[in-house]
Amino acid sequence: MSEKNKKPQKLKARLPRGFVDREAHDIRAVNEMTAKIREVYERYGFDPVETPMFEYTDALGKFLPDSDRPNEGVFSLQDDDDQWMSLRYDLTAPLARHVAENFNDIQLPYRTYRAGYVFRNEKPGPGRFRQFMQFDADSVGAPGVQADAEMCMMMADTLEALGIKRGDYVIRVNNRKVLDGVMEAIGLGGEENAARRLNVLRAIDKLDKFGPEGVKLLLGEGRKDESGDFTKGAGLNQEQTEKVLFFVSIQDYAASAAELAALVAGTARGAEGVEELNAIGALVAGGGYDSSRIKIDPSVVRGLEYYTGPVYEAELTFDVTNEKGEKVVFGSVGGGGRYDGLVSRFMGQPVPATGFSIGVSRLMTALKNLGKLGTDEVIAPVLVTVMDGDVESMGRYQRFTQDLRNAGIRAEMYQGNWKKFGNQLKYADRRGSPIAIIQGGDERAEGVVQIKDLIEGKRLSGEITDNTEWREARVAQIMVPEADLVEKVKEILAAQAEDRERAK
Amino acid sequence: MSEKNKKPQKLKARLPRGFVDREAHDIRAVNEMTAKIREVYERYGFDPVETPMFEYTDALGKFLPDSDRPNEGVFSLQDDDDQWMSLRYDLTAPLARHVAENFNDIQLPYRTYRAGYVFRNEKPGPGRFRQFMQFDADSVGAPGVQADAEMCMMMADTLEALGIKRGDYVIRVNNRKVLDGVMEAIGLGGEENAARRLNVLRAIDKLDKFGPEGVKLLLGEGRKDESGDFTKGAGLNQEQTEKVLFFVSIQDYAASAAELAALVAGTARGAEGVEELNAIGALVAGGGYDSSRIKIDPSVVRGLEYYTGPVYEAELTFDVTNEKGEKVVFGSVGGGGRYDGLVSRFMGQPVPATGFSIGVSRLMTALKNLGKLGTDEVIAPVLVTVMDGDVESMGRYQRFTQDLRNAGIRAEMYQGNWKKFGNQLKYADRRGSPIAIIQGGDERAEGVVQIKDLIEGKRLSGEITDNTEWREARVAQIMVPEADLVEKVKEILAAQAEDRERAK
Repeated sequence: MSEKNKKPQKLKARLPRGFVDREAHDIRAVNEMTAKIREVYERYGFDPVETPMFEYTDALGKFLPDSDRPNEGVFSLQDDDDQWMSLRYDLTAPLARHVAENFNDIQLPYRTYRAGYVFRNEKPGPGRFRQFMQFDADSVGAPGVQADAEMCMMMADTLEALGIKRGDYVIRVNNRKVLDGVMEAIGLGGEENAARRLNVLRAIDKLDKFGPEGVKLLLGEGRKDESGDFTKGAGLNQEQTEKVLFFVSIQDYAASAAELAALVAGTARGAEGVEELNAIGALVAGGGYDSSRIKIDPSVVRGLEYYTGPVYEAELTFDVTNEKGEKVVFGSVGGGGRYDGLVSRFMGQPVPATGFSIGVSRLMTALKNLGKLGTDEVIAPVLVTVMDGDVESMGRYQRFTQDLRNAGIRAEMYQGNWKKFGNQLKYADRRGSPIAIIQGGDERAEGVVQIKDLIEGKRLSGEITDNTEWREARVAQIMVPEADLVEKVKEILAAQAEDRERAK
Repeated sequence: MSEKNKKPQKLKARLPRGFVDREAHDIRAVNEMTAKIREVYERYGFDPVETPMFEYTDALGKFLPDSDRPNEGVFSLQDDDDQWMSLRYDLTAPLARHVAENFNDIQLPYRTYRAGYVFRNEKPGPGRFRQFMQFDADSVGAPGVQADAEMCMMMADTLEALGIKRGDYVIRVNNRKVLDGVMEAIGLGGEENAARRLNVLRAIDKLDKFGPEGVKLLLGEGRKDESGDFTKGAGLNQEQTEKVLFFVSIQDYAASAAELAALVAGTARGAEGVEELNAIGALVAGGGYDSSRIKIDPSVVRGLEYYTGPVYEAELTFDVTNEKGEKVVFGSVGGGGRYDGLVSRFMGQPVPATGFSIGVSRLMTALKNLGKLGTDEVIAPVLVTVMDGDVESMGRYQRFTQDLRNAGIRAEMYQGNWKKFGNQLKYADRRGSPIAIIQGGDERAEGVVQIKDLIEGKRLSGEITDNTEWREARVAQIMVPEADLVEKVKEILAAQAEDRERAK
């Protein structure tokens, strides 16, 4: 009757570009990881809150932190009342809308966390997807840098809760206000220099990519890349360039603090910024975090264009081998900062806020590299095979299966075409089933059932090369009364678990 | 420097129509519920798999089960290569695409589950949202009704795992093939009667809404509703109408089985359908499920247009009070059936499949009604107040907070403007904090700290009406050496937990 299914036309099944399907091991790993993160955030007194995937486009605003082309990278569509809606590109802009919309009901400071998918309408590339998961925490209505300091401590605790050792990570902290002070100190303050400041910001944002030499060119006349393409620079003179470079190249904050303070002395916000950095340093020290865990580091430049005060970034410092076979530092797994403007654009009043975001799949990659995820593997189900397809026999197979499940054992009755028995054992093998249960007519008549230890069977079949020996041994296979099925299966599963433990 | 923030224009913060923000209690309840569902599915040998929110529109197809207007109810947009993409409207169509795309790598039968958001571009209404969560399980490549029987048992086990008592739910099973047989028996078989069959299907789909009398009119000439609007009927004669009504009105399958078999005898698929229903009945009985838990029931009509074989529905049978104050049966919380056409439209071969979907928020409402969710409440964090805002003092408050957290206690330092101390206690009160920690200059000098039991304090302040008495009592407040802070907080929290336990 379903005529629409009858068309001979064959559709091509394909994922949209830039999207992925997620398999069981990946889903389980993310669940394991996010559960641990959640535990830390809850202990810090944060509560979950979640917004939908869509926002009105105007409410979402143009606050894409990592993009040179805000709003272009967003999926948008027009609703039937002609209003434009967009899929969220991060979890911060929707939170700002949520707070503003419910401002009278929300108790400030508002401490919340959320994990969820975000969408970027960008050209997909290797490792760059158009839907990915972020895990955010934010304090809204928290004006002091103690809130930023708390975020840094929470990031550190989160990484340790995930099994990353002290010394294998560092939380690096900078402050946008200090950069503003540097700008002012080199004569780029004021409304009239906004465009030039933006060029400087974009130049130093390339520090990771091109190094100090490349940034120097971008701050000055410009830079020619390997292909010969020329990028026009910010046009700073040598003295200006050196001051900016001094700032972003500071490695040892304590050693350079005096020189930095002198550089920004007398500027409107620079001195305030330095004071904030020092306060954060003192606060985290009070909380018991030394500078090997949370480090004041003016070379953190990512997001400086977006944030309005402290900026922080969580970096994993151990080496991994990249696709070219080179050893490289793993690098950033998350970051954030203070964004005092994001909520207040809806409000008549300032609403200070700070927060950070973890890139879930990137952090998961790191944890997998370290062997910190998926350590207790999920065991595949016991397979109850089907020898006879009559309803009465199937009812019995079903009962075996149900008995195993009721004892807490993963189990399934074979649900494919039962007539080819070989396919059932092949299925069990490819599925990684630990045990197969078999009952034919003879066994049924006797009230017994065969239990096949597929793990032991596989091991033995590797050892026994002689075919006759194999067949005669009937290894790893026993016959038990139906009533003993569950107990015997439990025994074999326990023995297999012991073997795995020993093999570690 | 962020000139874009400076605009005086005030945006209106508002959620798009038909979408909701989710608060902590709701998120925690869904997490608790889905974890229990997952546990059952895992025990049945199902593994998680997840697809992205987007599919190419043509791959998604027009398989919206509950809608008269397929494809209209979908959010779609054009990608930059001009291909149309749509947000998934259910979790079944994307699974079909996933299986077809990875057919060579997937081991059949493919037993998977997934929870995720789906989207409907419909007019939002009370309780009808444009983004909502479904939780699905499917067996793909499972041709026999034993797979459908398994789904029914899994639904029953899931409801019980969630705390729904036996007798408070029933899984009802019907079969599209029997309906096809009835259609054929009344002369509506064959390609040429497709349109009339569709009208019959839509008429009986209104059984819940209009009852047998209403459906009778819709099967015949038509039905006039209270407003006087006339819906044209399917145009069956009286004999035809009675046969269809007999089928969908069967209450006691065993008693009506013979009559039903006679009605569809000789039809192409009717006899097969009856046989399948009987087999499902026998299989679930073999698994230990009697007809009070899984019931063959031809009055299940929802989704018959969509499915190709067995159809099943999970219904909660206890009464709830609706918004009009009437007692009504809670009703359906999920359902599914066999959809043999959905995967095969991508393939050159038939791919039989069966599965079901739970409406997460509806089931959650039911569980909340029963008091089965959120029973172990999350305790709000201990508040460490801020009396002095100098960096050194804050470092100490921070250390107290961190000490509590390290002992596994939810704790936070006050992050708002600390200068108005009253606001801090008001915050603690509105947040439901169990304890506040206070240390001013005098206490600091003595190395002690005040611990305020806010729960006990609230109770006492209810009892003590005299203001002087209140101030003199200094109730529920003690002073301890800094070193004893954590131990004492633990003690008070334990006492509070005991009080809660007693109050139950």
